[in-house]
Amino acid sequence: MKIYFATSISGANDVKINNILLIETLKKFGTVLTEHFAGVSKSGETELSDKEIHDRDLRWIDECDVIVAEVSNPSLGVGYELRYGIENGKRILCLKHKNGKRLSAMVTGSDYLEVEEYSGDEDIFKILCDFFEE
Amino acid sequence: MKIYFATSISGANDVKINNILLIETLKKFGTVLTEHFAGVSKSGETELSDKEIHDRDLRWIDECDVIVAEVSNPSLGVGYELRYGIENGKRILCLKHKNGKRLSAMVTGSDYLEVEEYSGDEDIFKILCDFFEE
Repeated sequence: MKIYFATSISGANDVKINNILLIETLKKFGTVLTEHFAGVSKSGETELSDKEIHDRDLRWIDECDVIVAEVSNPSLGVGYELRYGIENGKRILCLKHKNGKRLSAMVTGSDYLEVEEYSGDEDIFKILCDFFEE
Repeated sequence: MKIYFATSISGANDVKINNILLIETLKKFGTVLTEHFAGVSKSGETELSDKEIHDRDLRWIDECDVIVAEVSNPSLGVGYELRYGIENGKRILCLKHKNGKRLSAMVTGSDYLEVEEYSGDEDIFKILCDFFEE
């Protein structure tokens, strides 16, 4: 099971997200292609141009079985990746922290995005179990 | 000339954008399908469900000749719309205020997005003239 994990990186971070914990939890369910997003490994971003990062990330979405996106913070990149995932028929789970602002209708109004709200670590594990067991 | 104007609505607004002025300037070049985004007209959002807003906005992108997106603030919705525009072969101009944070590599690294930085009203008019004259 190859998992593309999408999360806000350089954007505003209204809600502090524990990406490291999220990725460690995701690794119980498969291989996380975007592990460097949590700062666990920086290898992915070393000396790459924006075009190289863009093309590599889309290739990883092509390769992945599912996308899991943390959507509590607004992000152009995550929005772009969600639509690219839909375009390519990927199964997509969006995780929203209860303290996050109201989501865009582009996310909540799409038939192809499953949105789940969480408040703590146990919620995330349960949500992921349900998602990956389906 | 039908113009789809995309901008951050509910997201974080690190940079205060004058959407009304942007839309008024865009109207010199064509019909702006998303005029209500500036609060000029609220008719677009009245009593619509998230799914209705999502589907209407994608229909407008289908219909438009060009997309002009204000990208100075992070936004899931704008990122989603940018990718949907690319998916549908639209010509897309991204406007970034000089005070905006560094853009996602998904935007700057895409071959299909033209990104222009501006600092004031005169810049915007000149950038739009150049874009629409091409």
